[in-house]
Amino acid sequence: MSKIDELIYSLNSIARSGWMIKGIEPCKAETVSQHLFASSLIALEISSKLNNVDKYKAASIALIHDIGEAIIGDISKTANIDKSKSEKDAINSLDINNEIKKLYYEFESSNTIEGIIAKISDLLSTYIISLKYEREGYNVNSIKDNVKEEIINLSKKYNLENIIIDFLKGLDKTNK
Amino acid sequence: MSKIDELIYSLNSIARSGWMIKGIEPCKAETVSQHLFASSLIALEISSKLNNVDKYKAASIALIHDIGEAIIGDISKTANIDKSKSEKDAINSLDINNEIKKLYYEFESSNTIEGIIAKISDLLSTYIISLKYEREGYNVNSIKDNVKEEIINLSKKYNLENIIIDFLKGLDKTNK
Amino acid sequence: MSKIDELIYSLNSIARSGWMIKGIEPCKAETVSQHLFASSLIALEISSKLNNVDKYKAASIALIHDIGEAIIGDISKTANIDKSKSEKDAINSLDINNEIKKLYYEFESSNTIEGIIAKISDLLSTYIISLKYEREGYNVNSIKDNVKEEIINLSKKYNLENIIIDFLKGLDKTNK
Amino acid sequence: MSKIDELIYSLNSIARSGWMIKGIEPCKAETVSQHLFASSLIALEISSKLNNVDKYKAASIALIHDIGEAIIGDISKTANIDKSKSEKDAINSLDINNEIKKLYYEFESSNTIEGIIAKISDLLSTYIISLKYEREGYNVNSIKDNVKEEIINLSKKYNLENIIIDFLKGLDKTNK
Amino acid sequence: MSKIDELIYSLNSIARSGWMIKGIEPCKAETVSQHLFASSLIALEISSKLNNVDKYKAASIALIHDIGEAIIGDISKTANIDKSKSEKDAINSLDINNEIKKLYYEFESSNTIEGIIAKISDLLSTYIISLKYEREGYNVNSIKDNVKEEIINLSKKYNLENIIIDFLKGLDKTNK
Amino acid sequence: MSKIDELIYSLNSIARSGWMIKGIEPCKAETVSQHLFASSLIALEISSKLNNVDKYKAASIALIHDIGEAIIGDISKTANIDKSKSEKDAINSLDINNEIKKLYYEFESSNTIEGIIAKISDLLSTYIISLKYEREGYNVNSIKDNVKEEIINLSKKYNLENIIIDFLKGLDKTNK
Repeated sequence: MSKIDELIYSLNSIARSGWMIKGIEPCKAETVSQHLFASSLIALEISSKLNNVDKYKAASIALIHDIGEAIIGDISKTANIDKSKSEKDAINSLDINNEIKKLYYEFESSNTIEGIIAKISDLLSTYIISLKYEREGYNVNSIKDNVKEEIINLSKKYNLENIIIDFLKGLDKTNK
Repeated sequence: MSKIDELIYSLNSIARSGWMIKGIEPCKAETVSQHLFASSLIALEISSKLNNVDKYKAASIALIHDIGEAIIGDISKTANIDKSKSEKDAINSLDINNEIKKLYYEFESSNTIEGIIAKISDLLSTYIISLKYEREGYNVNSIKDNVKEEIINLSKKYNLENIIIDFLKGLDKTNK
Repeated sequence: MSKIDELIYSLNSIARSGWMIKGIEPCKAETVSQHLFASSLIALEISSKLNNVDKYKAASIALIHDIGEAIIGDISKTANIDKSKSEKDAINSLDINNEIKKLYYEFESSNTIEGIIAKISDLLSTYIISLKYEREGYNVNSIKDNVKEEIINLSKKYNLENIIIDFLKGLDKTNK
Repeated sequence: MSKIDELIYSLNSIARSGWMIKGIEPCKAETVSQHLFASSLIALEISSKLNNVDKYKAASIALIHDIGEAIIGDISKTANIDKSKSEKDAINSLDINNEIKKLYYEFESSNTIEGIIAKISDLLSTYIISLKYEREGYNVNSIKDNVKEEIINLSKKYNLENIIIDFLKGLDKTNK
Repeated sequence: MSKIDELIYSLNSIARSGWMIKGIEPCKAETVSQHLFASSLIALEISSKLNNVDKYKAASIALIHDIGEAIIGDISKTANIDKSKSEKDAINSLDINNEIKKLYYEFESSNTIEGIIAKISDLLSTYIISLKYEREGYNVNSIKDNVKEEIINLSKKYNLENIIIDFLKGLDKTNK
Repeated sequence: MSKIDELIYSLNSIARSGWMIKGIEPCKAETVSQHLFASSLIALEISSKLNNVDKYKAASIALIHDIGEAIIGDISKTANIDKSKSEKDAINSLDINNEIKKLYYEFESSNTIEGIIAKISDLLSTYIISLKYEREGYNVNSIKDNVKEEIINLSKKYNLENIIIDFLKGLDKTNK
């Protein structure tokens, strides 16, 4: 049963496994807490442009979507492991308010617009970081391309294509 | 005019000045993005225990309260400088949605319960990190004590004493 | 299919998840390659004191026991996930000599004295690092205690108690 | 009142804000103590080529020109804040010999050739570091260009153009 | 008299001097323990393709060839100093099994095929790391070229040209 | 032939070998440029209290006393190697003004009061850093004690006992 202070210490120290696997040194690798910050900020930005969305809730879902990693660590997609049960157990074991835990289930189920935006923001956040590492000479192509494809697919599926394509175009201007 | 990707790159790289001044090495110092994550999570936790609070909005205010630092850097309280104008100009120059900028003004003015909770969460977040550095042999007493005093004062002023004192007690159990 | 150079880049950059979960900052956390070096050196030391052991083989098994993590990352024990299939797939996908892959299976099955020594050396290596982090103010008690218990159990099971207890006593002298 | 040991601990840990704002990670960012070393060495080199200059004094002025940051941190130029009063208060509060404090005033006033050389060396030092970050894929153009312009302007104003242009040419040879 | 735990702590913390001299920041520089891991893994790979070689012994020699640096540090080739006596004294002073110390002498004398493979693997390991730093914008040309030349010369001298040239070609495919 | 920009890049990246040998991680270890800054500042402070000393020259000697390490790296005292010839060759090969090289010889010969103060400041600087690492849980006793003894001996030999003992007492107040 991990308390909020321990949870913060963990998320600040866990560097994301995907980057490290690609050769980004631990001292340079994005931490989970930084990933959650960026996902949340992007969710706020995107949902501010939409009607009928609780933008603060979307941001809150994005903020907490990976907090179970404080218990189980950041398990890479390349492990090809179903981590959903492990992650749920982790979330349940955390000593935090149930209102926060509920948000995680909304992220997992993607059955609300806020949960969907959080999911896309998670991917956009990873995409943005990949652009920086690429400029610095790291080979993160496979992550960048996979994530971009997922972003496009999700935004089509949920009729968010216009707003997301616009968002992606803005990134290309900075990161050419 | 800084775009959201540049903003994220900056906030991930800016280590907080207060810690570095106290001798915490840059590689170990909390970044601004990590501080914003923790502040936002704490705001969510605290406001989940209160009625009549938009907890997601409180979390969102805490999330963005320092994003102006992407432009101006993290100016230490020890500088004794009024940075409010500089920070406002920074916020205004950011290429992000106006809805986000409005949240900053709610933080600054402290005229809503959500803004007040964000403010206390900002301080609690700093307090939590100070406990970790102290255990690791750093002398961060002055920050820890100042921040705790501010927390107590604010929670008294806004009738949040019970909930905040409880929160602080929980921290002491982990960090003895 | 990861080649030996990519494999080295990955293992040098992957910080071990157990330490990061406990709040050890990425820049300070032991990498997988460092863990494999230490495990291998310890295997060499311990098996040098035993008869009827191919000490170089024991060292080689310890050296490569985690190289699959170059593909799947370092999945923490706290995740409570059976990663054996994922790890085997990873090993098989590596573009390295089959002779090396065979060593991994000897580690997993623990059906040779060399495989057993590699397993104990893996644990001893983790124990040694936990002593250092503890001195530096980190709370790694749970890892330290679990690992020590496993060491004792394994050394009893395989009649290596004398030599391992001696080894542990030596560590306590340095790390008091 | 900060003593010389605390002052050294602080300046070794404060990473320069300008670099971090541009996305250079804290672990890679130049510290204030490193900046002061480089400024001082450059002052020694440049003034060694001039007559009628106390080269050791020029180096000493460059060495200490930012020591007030041990109290107030490194406030970025992008903050557009007049930090001169804050910096003077900081210098005065330091528990160091008055002879050292006097050097700071000579830097600020630029009314001696040694103070002027220290000022140009401060800028040259920043320019040199920007060239390294640029090669490593960081976008530090705005700092590099601003600093170069200031260097040229100052060297014209004080009739040091020949020697400074020569110095800059040498740098371009290494950093192409 | 350094014990195995202190030895591991040292080798994990000593960043290789050659890289740091070339401007690779300490947080990014390969440590001696990482170098020994990579050398050992390469020795295992190469000798697995050869007959009449104790591949595990070759790996073990490569594993320990620099452990004396736990006492004397990593003295750069650019120092042009004969460090052989100093290194031997260091090895002898280590509190490790004599069987390990013997391996060092086999590395130094290069009078067995296992010792020779360890020597080439040491160089190949350095070459591989130089390719990564080069991609990240560092100027490590002189190390890369010197090491490659030594590799070619040694492989010719000991009739290992085919296998080593093949190994080098594989690296070029990843690191183009 | 190393130019001033390359020299600065090197000295900023070379972490001091003594600390790393003692287990201080590269990301936390003092760099040579930081050591030279601190030595120089201490020389300025101490000589400001003395008559008949060119305090700026003492600071300048301390500033450059290790710049040869940009070529040869930081060779630890524990290597027991006479590095004086190697260091002189390094200094001579640097592409810097001869006036700077002369200062190095004054440091080496210790035949002027300024050279002596630089030498003591070099040691005091190391002592100050050892106090910080000790507080953070590292075992740097042997360095701390050796350096303190050398400081006392030198200050007795050159009749600087009063001023140095006072300086040391000030440090003990902060670092209890």
